[in-house]
Amino acid sequence: MKAGKRKNIEKLKKAALGMITCDLTITNVNLFNVITDEIYPCEVDICDGYIVNVRSFSNTRKANTKKYYDGRGRYLLPGLIDCHVHVESTMMTPENLSRAIVPYGTTTIITDPHEIANVMGIEGVKYMIDNSKNSKLRQFVLAPSCVAATENLEKAGAFFTSKEIEEMLQMDGVIGLAEVMDYIGVINHSKRMSSIVDQAINKEKYIQGHCPFVSGDNLAAYLIGGPVSCHESSTRDEVLEKIRNGMHINLRSSSLDDSSINIAQAINQINDHQFVSICTDDIHAKDILTDGHINGVIKRYIKSGLKGRDLYKMATINAAREYGFSDIGIIAPGYLADMQLINDFDGSCPEAVFISGQLVAEKGKYLLSDEKVSQYQLRNTVCVDQIKSEDDFLMRVPDGYNKDAISVNVVVKTSDRLWRTVEKMDLPVKNGCVDISGDPSLIYVCNCNRYGYNNKTIAIYKDFGLNSGALASTVAHDSHNMNICYHNPKQAFLACEKLKQCGGGVCVVDDEGSCDIIKLPIAGLMSELDCKSISQEIEKVQQKLSKLTDGSVHVLSTAVMSLTVLPSVVISDMGLVDGNKQAFVDIFVND
Amino acid sequence: MKAGKRKNIEKLKKAALGMITCDLTITNVNLFNVITDEIYPCEVDICDGYIVNVRSFSNTRKANTKKYYDGRGRYLLPGLIDCHVHVESTMMTPENLSRAIVPYGTTTIITDPHEIANVMGIEGVKYMIDNSKNSKLRQFVLAPSCVAATENLEKAGAFFTSKEIEEMLQMDGVIGLAEVMDYIGVINHSKRMSSIVDQAINKEKYIQGHCPFVSGDNLAAYLIGGPVSCHESSTRDEVLEKIRNGMHINLRSSSLDDSSINIAQAINQINDHQFVSICTDDIHAKDILTDGHINGVIKRYIKSGLKGRDLYKMATINAAREYGFSDIGIIAPGYLADMQLINDFDGSCPEAVFISGQLVAEKGKYLLSDEKVSQYQLRNTVCVDQIKSEDDFLMRVPDGYNKDAISVNVVVKTSDRLWRTVEKMDLPVKNGCVDISGDPSLIYVCNCNRYGYNNKTIAIYKDFGLNSGALASTVAHDSHNMNICYHNPKQAFLACEKLKQCGGGVCVVDDEGSCDIIKLPIAGLMSELDCKSISQEIEKVQQKLSKLTDGSVHVLSTAVMSLTVLPSVVISDMGLVDGNKQAFVDIFVND
Repeated sequence: MKAGKRKNIEKLKKAALGMITCDLTITNVNLFNVITDEIYPCEVDICDGYIVNVRSFSNTRKANTKKYYDGRGRYLLPGLIDCHVHVESTMMTPENLSRAIVPYGTTTIITDPHEIANVMGIEGVKYMIDNSKNSKLRQFVLAPSCVAATENLEKAGAFFTSKEIEEMLQMDGVIGLAEVMDYIGVINHSKRMSSIVDQAINKEKYIQGHCPFVSGDNLAAYLIGGPVSCHESSTRDEVLEKIRNGMHINLRSSSLDDSSINIAQAINQINDHQFVSICTDDIHAKDILTDGHINGVIKRYIKSGLKGRDLYKMATINAAREYGFSDIGIIAPGYLADMQLINDFDGSCPEAVFISGQLVAEKGKYLLSDEKVSQYQLRNTVCVDQIKSEDDFLMRVPDGYNKDAISVNVVVKTSDRLWRTVEKMDLPVKNGCVDISGDPSLIYVCNCNRYGYNNKTIAIYKDFGLNSGALASTVAHDSHNMNICYHNPKQAFLACEKLKQCGGGVCVVDDEGSCDIIKLPIAGLMSELDCKSISQEIEKVQQKLSKLTDGSVHVLSTAVMSLTVLPSVVISDMGLVDGNKQAFVDIFVND
Repeated sequence: MKAGKRKNIEKLKKAALGMITCDLTITNVNLFNVITDEIYPCEVDICDGYIVNVRSFSNTRKANTKKYYDGRGRYLLPGLIDCHVHVESTMMTPENLSRAIVPYGTTTIITDPHEIANVMGIEGVKYMIDNSKNSKLRQFVLAPSCVAATENLEKAGAFFTSKEIEEMLQMDGVIGLAEVMDYIGVINHSKRMSSIVDQAINKEKYIQGHCPFVSGDNLAAYLIGGPVSCHESSTRDEVLEKIRNGMHINLRSSSLDDSSINIAQAINQINDHQFVSICTDDIHAKDILTDGHINGVIKRYIKSGLKGRDLYKMATINAAREYGFSDIGIIAPGYLADMQLINDFDGSCPEAVFISGQLVAEKGKYLLSDEKVSQYQLRNTVCVDQIKSEDDFLMRVPDGYNKDAISVNVVVKTSDRLWRTVEKMDLPVKNGCVDISGDPSLIYVCNCNRYGYNNKTIAIYKDFGLNSGALASTVAHDSHNMNICYHNPKQAFLACEKLKQCGGGVCVVDDEGSCDIIKLPIAGLMSELDCKSISQEIEKVQQKLSKLTDGSVHVLSTAVMSLTVLPSVVISDMGLVDGNKQAFVDIFVND
């Protein structure tokens, strides 16, 4: 598969032969050859965006070129490839993301627009493809495979069957099927998942996996089903079992999760790393500004015990080969001139980045003046007509219930990282509603459908960390219904109204009614601001939030509260859901 | 790309889960995992020809299986892949080749039927595909790109343009374009080669390279042109330059050539071997019997300094990835059960070989009873109507020439391996013909068109090594016109008549008129005999030949005398050709 559009082969050959003048020659560099794992001096000639000659050793003829770029003895290597990223999680549009991460050396990303797909369906996927076309960053799309993540446990803004998958796989820029999260469906050969995966198999497209803790016979069945990769491993043994069974392992270190030490141990145990590549998955703007992008993941894994040079190979040639790209990930004649110059193999920001042979960034600074090339008129996707007043945030006991206390399945923490379960608690009833005012460790959480289904669920969470006020967000994987965490319906209603008005985002309200908002008008997921501006907005909201919490809550804490495929109790618009059992959990306990 | 036909995924999943009974379980083996480069104990479950489960470490459940095969602690690894082979050079049909090489552990070959294509065009390619379909060995075909090898220097039995390439690329089993030998055409963007290569580029098919000694700017231009591999390197620096420039290197050690020591030095200099794979190219039946197949190449390269385990990776996962196969070359769930059991990583014949999970060979013995499954009625391709009598082998001086000696460009050896040049010699003229009877170091060589063009060329060769009698052959790369080496027209005519009668082959005639023939009735290139029988025929002819020669001449010595793309003087039906200049050389010198 080619990442680049059709090239003028005759012209490039002439440029290689020195018969016509090249556009650029990068001189005085030490090439890191990711094929042979060697470093040696060379000069690279570029024409029409392609590498036409890598002159080294005996081939020392003078370049025939318009321009030189002095590499000052630095290492030249291919641009980095992010194997799996949800652009929506960065809170930026595809084109703004491009400007944010290209300076860090990333030149290609493979995206899964399943967040916006859950909100807006194929319309959203098309927006992401259209918007990305204006970016320097090469962006390839995988068709979201699990929209919605589950079939009967939530209502998202769209529901994809094999028909939608077929349509997307025919779109320009769509190169495969995105993370097949419904591993149970694949293993058990459910009708829906089989028909979806079949679309990719029949078209011989890449199928991305996603199977946390899947092991043994189940893993074998999942692999037979088609997925070839996984970015969800968190233990050493999990990584080892998957790669030994033929799975490509995408190292991850996202804003939501870091298992790099365990994963690095596994990688160090095996002798060949060609099936290992790198991804960010979910990383938001502020973390990009602070930690970088794929280079930041590399830095993290160096700290966790892997070798820098190996990691740069993973993020270049390994990623390209995993996807079957034959013109990126390597510096050689005929490849796209996506390259970077670095001082060391340590994950630092590169000194210079080239895409299609164009110098696009230097020392972390984006050099082009292509700000705001796209203008879109997108509809407001926050439709919460079921919320008409504060009273709609009261947690009412069942009709006819008239005792002054009620048994409730309260959502509590488990010993695991992020997971939760339920625990029965007796709570007071006041005016027909559950009253938590006596226990500051409890809050109400409402998951409110925002696609016109008029569903909502209100449950009690313990030890969430919010001491007062309310936190509301339209970012809630994967259906992205609105989550509101609150002590008092008044602040909840205010936060909800604010998000409705601006088309979604994250809103924090204190007890005095003062609001701060990260506005995400694009599908309730993305801002039109650039990385720095959206980071400032995030920072401001986080600061307000920190005053209301014990410090453990951040602006995306609600983002994983509703992911029905997690091995956890989560909240959807249809009720409390036990992800392990893929079944609803009663909120009120019938003794 | 899948090597296997469509699989019943639902059934395989159930087998993986232990819900249905597998066909076979291979127990008690040490898996050589070619992905991670590890060795560990496991059991492998097979169903419907596919690997469904590789149970190791914690997954120690009892197999649900019909049959067990005890691996006795041996190493289990994938079957070997030959990246590039001309089946015709083995002198066997595709199905006989299968029976010959499968016992050596080869389970997949990628063939270039350009020998038969030169003789019979697309009809020949179809025969090879058809005949291979009955074999256990997986055989994939690359469309011959250079038929004839040159445009105006010889007349072959076919001439392919982009039209024929397009037709072949659409055939079932054709997976790409075969060795693009006309590197000069590619580098200079000749109309013919560009239009041929474009067919493969447009269909995103694999393009195999072939570019001996191409280097520097020319190599860059060749790579831009599309070819991705080369099996023609013979020096250390040549290998290093090619692999560093992104080329897949196919290690070769054929019946015609061995540069393994130089190549091994290059491979040992680089740190990553993922772009190295293995091929046989031209290997004939007798060598297969003696030395094995890809395992024999492995043995040779171990001797030349490479590590056994690395070589087995090259011939499995590396080859599969080079071609983009996603279901062979690895032992993992969902992959075809093409596997072998070996005692050591030393290139010895495997203890057992499985294809699609079927035990096909043990201890070098082919176990199936599928002899002679195909019967073909093929036409006699030897059409030499221009040879009517002994007199046609006289080397006549030009009309009107009446001196008693003449200046002749005699074809002499250079200091190189196989190459030749010309040297002017004055030779006597007798009865209007060049007379070499006074110099036993000289012979006549006639290249005689066998496709009805009625061309022939007669030239003088020095130090060929034939002391008496005649050697004739219809195997003469690539156009495969008939070459006859002789001292006396009488034996030449006899040899020619014999080959005409039997449809081609190699014939040796001594001065008494006693003949021995390797009969190759299929396109004058292949026998219908099995490996052992044809080897005996070769041996018998070789023995007769040895009596007539100084020991340096073997039955295939004439096979490279007419290859117009060699950097050598060669003989075609149209004249003497200087391959370096791609131009004719006068036979008679005009002083």
